[in-house]
Amino acid sequence: MFSKRTLLICALALILGSAQARPNTSAVGVAPRKVSQDIVDAVTQLNLGQSAPIDAVDVGLDPTPSARVPRPEPLKSGDENAKGDEGHKMERYPLSSVDFARVKTPFIIGIWILSASIAKIGFHMTPKLHLIFPESCLLIVVGVVIGVVLYFCTDVAVSPLTPNTFFFYMLPPIILDAGYFMPNRLFFDNLGTILLMAVVGTIFNIATIGGSLYACGKMGIYGESETPGLMDVFLFASLISAVDPVAVLAVFEEIHVNEILYIVVFGESLLNDAVTVVMYHMMESYNEIGLDKIIAQDIASGVGSFFVVALGGTAIGIIWGFLTGLVTRFTDHVRVIEPIFIFVMAYLAYLNAEIFHMSGILAITFCGITMKNYVESNISQKSHTTVKYALKMLSSSAETIIFMFLGVATVNNMHVWNTWFVVLTIAFCSVFRVIGVILLSALANRFRLHKLSRVDQFVMSYGGLRGAVAFALVLLVDENVVKQKNMFVTTTIAVIYFTVFLQGITIKPLVKILNVKRANKRKPTMNERIHERFMDHLMAGIEDIVGKTGNYNVRDKFKRFDNRFIRPLLIRDLKVFLHLSL
Amino acid sequence: MFSKRTLLICALALILGSAQARPNTSAVGVAPRKVSQDIVDAVTQLNLGQSAPIDAVDVGLDPTPSARVPRPEPLKSGDENAKGDEGHKMERYPLSSVDFARVKTPFIIGIWILSASIAKIGFHMTPKLHLIFPESCLLIVVGVVIGVVLYFCTDVAVSPLTPNTFFFYMLPPIILDAGYFMPNRLFFDNLGTILLMAVVGTIFNIATIGGSLYACGKMGIYGESETPGLMDVFLFASLISAVDPVAVLAVFEEIHVNEILYIVVFGESLLNDAVTVVMYHMMESYNEIGLDKIIAQDIASGVGSFFVVALGGTAIGIIWGFLTGLVTRFTDHVRVIEPIFIFVMAYLAYLNAEIFHMSGILAITFCGITMKNYVESNISQKSHTTVKYALKMLSSSAETIIFMFLGVATVNNMHVWNTWFVVLTIAFCSVFRVIGVILLSALANRFRLHKLSRVDQFVMSYGGLRGAVAFALVLLVDENVVKQKNMFVTTTIAVIYFTVFLQGITIKPLVKILNVKRANKRKPTMNERIHERFMDHLMAGIEDIVGKTGNYNVRDKFKRFDNRFIRPLLIRDLKVFLHLSL
Repeated sequence: MFSKRTLLICALALILGSAQARPNTSAVGVAPRKVSQDIVDAVTQLNLGQSAPIDAVDVGLDPTPSARVPRPEPLKSGDENAKGDEGHKMERYPLSSVDFARVKTPFIIGIWILSASIAKIGFHMTPKLHLIFPESCLLIVVGVVIGVVLYFCTDVAVSPLTPNTFFFYMLPPIILDAGYFMPNRLFFDNLGTILLMAVVGTIFNIATIGGSLYACGKMGIYGESETPGLMDVFLFASLISAVDPVAVLAVFEEIHVNEILYIVVFGESLLNDAVTVVMYHMMESYNEIGLDKIIAQDIASGVGSFFVVALGGTAIGIIWGFLTGLVTRFTDHVRVIEPIFIFVMAYLAYLNAEIFHMSGILAITFCGITMKNYVESNISQKSHTTVKYALKMLSSSAETIIFMFLGVATVNNMHVWNTWFVVLTIAFCSVFRVIGVILLSALANRFRLHKLSRVDQFVMSYGGLRGAVAFALVLLVDENVVKQKNMFVTTTIAVIYFTVFLQGITIKPLVKILNVKRANKRKPTMNERIHERFMDHLMAGIEDIVGKTGNYNVRDKFKRFDNRFIRPLLIRDLKVFLHLSL
Repeated sequence: MFSKRTLLICALALILGSAQARPNTSAVGVAPRKVSQDIVDAVTQLNLGQSAPIDAVDVGLDPTPSARVPRPEPLKSGDENAKGDEGHKMERYPLSSVDFARVKTPFIIGIWILSASIAKIGFHMTPKLHLIFPESCLLIVVGVVIGVVLYFCTDVAVSPLTPNTFFFYMLPPIILDAGYFMPNRLFFDNLGTILLMAVVGTIFNIATIGGSLYACGKMGIYGESETPGLMDVFLFASLISAVDPVAVLAVFEEIHVNEILYIVVFGESLLNDAVTVVMYHMMESYNEIGLDKIIAQDIASGVGSFFVVALGGTAIGIIWGFLTGLVTRFTDHVRVIEPIFIFVMAYLAYLNAEIFHMSGILAITFCGITMKNYVESNISQKSHTTVKYALKMLSSSAETIIFMFLGVATVNNMHVWNTWFVVLTIAFCSVFRVIGVILLSALANRFRLHKLSRVDQFVMSYGGLRGAVAFALVLLVDENVVKQKNMFVTTTIAVIYFTVFLQGITIKPLVKILNVKRANKRKPTMNERIHERFMDHLMAGIEDIVGKTGNYNVRDKFKRFDNRFIRPLLIRDLKVFLHLSL
């Protein structure tokens, strides 16, 4: 009896969840033919509650919307008739009653997570499927299927992936997981190359993709009405150029290329966030200022704000990282809440950066990198295990939901398909990615000990996947300012599908054919680690003699400073640490 | 530079978080003397958004409120001037900008969790303090201090503990933790006594406390204007009579009495939820129907609804528990998301029960009890560790926040203090608790092998703590129906403080003085477990011969049914299980 009811409620949950989204996402929305009173209420309330047009995208699975709808009735307050309106006396005391509205939001979120996780089990039980296709592709397909079912069976469109949900609740666990388990040594050894690709590479891509798309627009290729303005094109270019950390993680975790290749591509996808944020904001406000009214000061502010966003985000992350180290120094009597500090303080670092419009991704990445050094020697082994697996669990389910929602969000009736624009965007993204990688690798190889080979460069180009960050950003574009918003949304989805499906599926066989060096999973032995440390000191010494301030020297100096001043402050039991650290 | 800014923002966060609450909780509210524009906006919006008077309590740290306030600006959409209102063009591109509103909700939640956790560290670093006082008391004191600071420094009252936050987000992890790690054998062995205390005991308390308070009211003790009606008194009695699981857990975990005593008191606090829910709803709707218009049908429905709420909640929990077992049978390729299923499905069980106005506490308790049998043999050792510590972490922080919020919520200007009502309530609660325990223990001892001694009965009476469930329920009372709501709120807080402080602090020395049998932490050896199993079969056999269907027979039959039909369906590798289960 109850299992049937449960299923019914689940279906209802999905339908209701979707009903909320329609009137806000649809510019040319078809009015729902039959909707329950609840839906009508929700809709009215949502429309009244809207203050700015840009707010329109902020609905769906965001845990907040149901609060806009007046809760028909709070918990345990009696049945529906027993509400506060005194004029209406209830008839009789009921034996039982049903009230879905008050638990709607958490229930729908739960159902989404559950169905995404079950879908994930499904793939892994069909071995052939999951050997050929990456999980991300399969999840998008499942999402599309759910989207189609909801679209045709319920007469209401769905868009559960809202930018706020994405940026505040799904992205942080994924990035924290990446930052906390970042192979620090590898990351800092390749930092030069990573920064080159992330900053110069992304700017290069924005300039070339934007310029080319605009030039093609000038030629009238897209048709009269659908040719976007200069700033519109560059706004689009700045969100479509960035390589996506979530997509890169999802694909690269399955192909197991060597660590250097992995860290260069993944590091780029993390650090390019500052460029994306700044360029996106800049193009957006230039658009509002008006092209003809931009003065030198605006451009100088733009360049300056890049440093503010990047360095500010990094600084906030590092400060919160140190604070976390400091706090966990004192947790030896309350082991059970140790993981709480790591999760909450990293999350606060992310939000803190977002308050100042700085790069939250940089903040949480560097918070993870910084805290790990100190936290790991303070917390208990059990807390360590909890952090590790809870982070993996959270990031894995966030990733699952992101790809599934990407699929669901694809099915709507607002698409503006412009074949030329889509084809040219994909072409320019691919071509300029390759050119950018070749040029910058040539530059990087002048300074690198381990040169990037042709094959490496190919994987770097081919691994430049686009993903949900671009999608969330394009949803945030203001329709009143950028007339071609819907065309941009459609094109972004097309680019994501192209990279995730075509490149994601073919990268595995290509890596095999090209014989790319694979990762070795072996952990370094104690001897090797001692040898490594010794070599570091030796190299720093050689650098000293040669008179060059290189990587090794900086690291050596930081290590000495860290050991003398920071560690004694942040680490509880230094002896234990020193023993463990060798 | 940033750390100062961060601190400033933290302070701001607390103030803003509090600002939201005032206009809704204050019946005789003093208008804030100076508030920022943001606060004024929030206030206006909240008042407009209010639909039913009962909704008034639903503000504060509930993750939803900020959604009622139109988000000034979604993420990454540019600075404040760049909003959608087209009439207003922005001046210049800014180097940097600050925008707190869009991250307010998650940021404030994070800050609360962080400060509660830091407070917890603080106690454990002052060894004397935490040896004398239970943690719950210290947390309430910290909460009161924070409340006073916020009250006098910010001119706005705070009430972050809303019933919705409590019931939907804080209670479930605590109860799941309790249910999942419930010593099943012990629980079912004592189920008879537990049910007797939970059902008959609670009803006895409601009747006697309500009756006595009403009788005293008739004598005019409380004063002319503050004498509540019959149904009002019984509504109050039904929420004040129930022993609170959170308070019991917090205190009993520190005193380490023997398992039987612990399971009887804690089991009672879990299973009395159905009684509380039903009585509370019943009194509430009788109040609306009007005392003179109640007919036999209403009373029959009330009695009937008890079985619906209790058995329905249990059934929903058991079904979701079986489903979780079934799902985890197939997770052997995706180990990392195994804990997700346990958390999400148990939470869905809770919400599912709440949809039908059944007992969510019973649902999630029995979901945990049921799933554990099957899940434990399906999931990996690492997932097991993650579930264990993540649950402990979640429930521990939820508990911490509940007590701290209880303290913060105490400081407000709506208190209606009626000395006689408070004193009499505390007296009746204590006296009838003792009488109830003595009477029902005498009844229970007729059937129990292990008799409850006088000392046991004393600890059972003394451990009947009241807590946050009562507080959340009294906040839900509709002011328009129950005129004495504020007096009830004040009295509930007084009772909670009395039990948590006086009884919570003195129970530890009393247990020592009375020489109550302590818990032995030793795990049973393999031999003892085999012996136990053998004894079960033997006892079932004896019961068969004597012709009595007792505890052992029921368990034996269920075990046989389980092994033959349920386990093969829900457990992946039965051989491994059978090996482990011995």
